[in-house]
Amino acid sequence: MKNVFLLGGGGFIGTNLARFLLENELNVTVYGRGNSKVFDGIHYIQGELSQQKDFEVLLMGQDAVIHLISTVSPASSMSDFLAPYQVDVIKTIEILEACRKLDIKKVIFISSGGTVYGTSKETKLIEESNTNPINNYGIAKLTIEKICLMYNEVYGMENVILRVANPYGVGQDPAKKVGAISVFYSNIINKVPISIYGDGETTRDYVEISDVIRAIYQALYYKVKKDCVPVFNIATGVGTSLNEIINEIQSVLGERAIINYIGERSIDVSHNVLDITKAQRELGYEVYYNFANGLRKFIDSSIGVT
Amino acid sequence: MKNVFLLGGGGFIGTNLARFLLENELNVTVYGRGNSKVFDGIHYIQGELSQQKDFEVLLMGQDAVIHLISTVSPASSMSDFLAPYQVDVIKTIEILEACRKLDIKKVIFISSGGTVYGTSKETKLIEESNTNPINNYGIAKLTIEKICLMYNEVYGMENVILRVANPYGVGQDPAKKVGAISVFYSNIINKVPISIYGDGETTRDYVEISDVIRAIYQALYYKVKKDCVPVFNIATGVGTSLNEIINEIQSVLGERAIINYIGERSIDVSHNVLDITKAQRELGYEVYYNFANGLRKFIDSSIGVT
Repeated sequence: MKNVFLLGGGGFIGTNLARFLLENELNVTVYGRGNSKVFDGIHYIQGELSQQKDFEVLLMGQDAVIHLISTVSPASSMSDFLAPYQVDVIKTIEILEACRKLDIKKVIFISSGGTVYGTSKETKLIEESNTNPINNYGIAKLTIEKICLMYNEVYGMENVILRVANPYGVGQDPAKKVGAISVFYSNIINKVPISIYGDGETTRDYVEISDVIRAIYQALYYKVKKDCVPVFNIATGVGTSLNEIINEIQSVLGERAIINYIGERSIDVSHNVLDITKAQRELGYEVYYNFANGLRKFIDSSIGVT
Repeated sequence: MKNVFLLGGGGFIGTNLARFLLENELNVTVYGRGNSKVFDGIHYIQGELSQQKDFEVLLMGQDAVIHLISTVSPASSMSDFLAPYQVDVIKTIEILEACRKLDIKKVIFISSGGTVYGTSKETKLIEESNTNPINNYGIAKLTIEKICLMYNEVYGMENVILRVANPYGVGQDPAKKVGAISVFYSNIINKVPISIYGDGETTRDYVEISDVIRAIYQALYYKVKKDCVPVFNIATGVGTSLNEIINEIQSVLGERAIINYIGERSIDVSHNVLDITKAQRELGYEVYYNFANGLRKFIDSSIGVT
């Protein structure tokens, strides 16, 4: 393993990942939408997935591809409902076809632990739990998962799916309005009201970014086994409600939040906590940061920045 | 329930279904590729799914849609690998959007019990079994299933998914080379060699067409429940191998088959038998024809025809 290609490397996970891979002496090429390289030491290619043609030229010489791109969000996938399939699914097949032809055996696809299970009732979701996504974003993620796994079965690839729960941490941009922790933190610091859909008891599994990055690195070297479908939850196994996040930030900062509770959105599920036993056993995945420690790390690194 | 629209009504299941619905006093509109109406009493619209625009005009005045179209086969989906998503998935979303706007609450999607489970290991597959399809055909069917179910959850539709196993019976055209029973029967009658991929021990769940048709009719009136995902296996619950089919046809006809055993195809799974308990409980589905009786009925109706 020498050359690693990051599809969508300019975002929150991507920039953290690129830095980690560089530190671990891999050659990193980042494909992103922005017009500047993220930092020194990486090879940066500017591009837009929907416009990209000829992946064989793009990926030539790579040993692995880490696929982090989504062209839609859960919310936007319910108005722009063809894009997840027309762009994300179709382009992923073109990427896999290029890998097959170039004999690149490993694609790591970053799926969504927060949306693929949808309305499944289990209190702690395992990778074999039923999947009933309630938005096109989640369905397209699931479709891409199945396509990656089919390429393992039919073409002998070693693709790995990571169903990442709700990542947070250093480098998450609150202006993007994704990621409750960074948005709430930013609002509280700036005395901007926080809008919450529902009663704030919605539970998610928030996972610190450095734990996610290590899991991706482990997946890069994971040898796919015949009897183990390589789909892994990357999370903490513990749920935190929106109200708990706000309380915790308030108590660390010693500031009061202004909260507006508004109607529920039908695209959200109420409870989402993932079992991580399989990733622990197979990848050697470990949770270094529980919620309190991860939040403290995030706030410490953010003070004076935001 | 008065007006029913059959998408893909010119095929094997569609023609049998249209006749049954007519006999049960429904107004039937059939959308198909052929250039002639299938038989009297139905309203026939000629069209090609990939070219079809404006489903709102097409579906106006309908009470339910039965969606039987696949633009690819399992085999062709591995060369023409974008079509299942670009055509089948995208057009189904357009159909569902039209239904939502027209307030048509029910779409019955005919999925594939033979491909959506893929390499799942269970000896008798239930609807909650894992789904690991090994061709794009199966993955696209699964994607469409999830989309239909999302429309139930988010928009209050009453869509039902029927995972039909391997249907056979009167009206199946052996020239289409789909459906082992009709192809084997036609070959034996015409003294044409039968080509079998693998050793002939590949097991499938063959379900007689009239049992399938009754299940679709039941699904039309099925009231979707909050706690029951409306996905149902439509099969017999009993597996039959290719060799057993040939032996049975030989013994009924008193003729010998000529068989060529050739290499396995990676797009086929070796064993596929479906549990039908959920359909029996929820839809009132019943199996009237076991394999021996169904085969006898098929042969009796075919003698003098082929």
